[in-house]
Amino acid sequence: MTKRVYLAGPEVFLSNAREVGARKRAICERHGLVGVFPADEEDACDPAQPLSEQGLAISRAMERVMRGCDAMIVNLTPFRGPSADVGSAYEMGFMRALGRTIFVYTNDDRPLLDRVASICGAVRARLGGEHEDPDGMAIEPFTLQDNLMLVGGVIASGGCLVAQRASHAERYTSLVAFECCVRQAAATLLR
Amino acid sequence: MTKRVYLAGPEVFLSNAREVGARKRAICERHGLVGVFPADEEDACDPAQPLSEQGLAISRAMERVMRGCDAMIVNLTPFRGPSADVGSAYEMGFMRALGRTIFVYTNDDRPLLDRVASICGAVRARLGGEHEDPDGMAIEPFTLQDNLMLVGGVIASGGCLVAQRASHAERYTSLVAFECCVRQAAATLLR
Repeated sequence: MTKRVYLAGPEVFLSNAREVGARKRAICERHGLVGVFPADEEDACDPAQPLSEQGLAISRAMERVMRGCDAMIVNLTPFRGPSADVGSAYEMGFMRALGRTIFVYTNDDRPLLDRVASICGAVRARLGGEHEDPDGMAIEPFTLQDNLMLVGGVIASGGCLVAQRASHAERYTSLVAFECCVRQAAATLLR
Repeated sequence: MTKRVYLAGPEVFLSNAREVGARKRAICERHGLVGVFPADEEDACDPAQPLSEQGLAISRAMERVMRGCDAMIVNLTPFRGPSADVGSAYEMGFMRALGRTIFVYTNDDRPLLDRVASICGAVRARLGGEHEDPDGMAIEPFTLQDNLMLVGGVIASGGCLVAQRASHAERYTSLVAFECCVRQAAATLLR
């Protein structure tokens, strides 16, 4: 039976988003899955409407699209900070509550502590041993790739996490870790 | 009937998280709601387990706690970048898919474009007029307070968004916008 997989990630913000989406869909197809790329689904948006209404219309369309998918593959590569894109994080929670399987990959395999130190500035140790960022906010000590709710959702859903380093210039376009993730998703979903 | 409200936000990372949680619960109680603060629910976590398993146990506990709540109030104040905390974003998607009402507040009322420019560096206009950040990633033009999935989920759920500026030093501890949000949540949930 056909398995539809929602392809979440910050690459929707690239100027060539649809080209990246087409490459992702082609990789899914090679592995027997139907990839659904958000930017391909945005055409319902009416340019005669106020901007805020256009944004809300895309949100409604994406929630409808997600309900029609069996699983998702999420690009967890850090976006505008040391953690994943918040839109993708929202979509992970949404799919988790629907009982769908969540597969994730990231093109930045550094531990969270290293990413916070490199992006937010010097980290400090608290008296209890836990580390905090320059704003005094704790950095999770759980050795998970990102916030525990995200990684916990992946594991609880029966999915997996692929972390591989891409070059800085290619961190939003490299599909090496993505293809590895698609392979594992296909092995799980099509068995 | 009692209404239980899950209190999401990055203040769980403060060194005095439980104190902030107690203040939030007291405000909820004053308005007739039962506030449920994540850090109060983490005690199931077994220090004899490996760190990663402790993190996953907290995730499982929080998903269970959320399923037992009628609504949520989320602190959307930017965290380690121009957008909300990814853990809170995940929780919003989770509660949205469960059909719960989502109320949000932020202590930084600047438009997304201004926050990206101030935190990520100079923004540029694309040929089509849309703006992008220094990494070439589009900044959503929809005049919404954060990523459209987050704001769209709030509106579709029947909740609301309160944006008020707190001083930089108090942006994770000020509860002025929170109390305003609790008042609106109580008016919606208890009518």
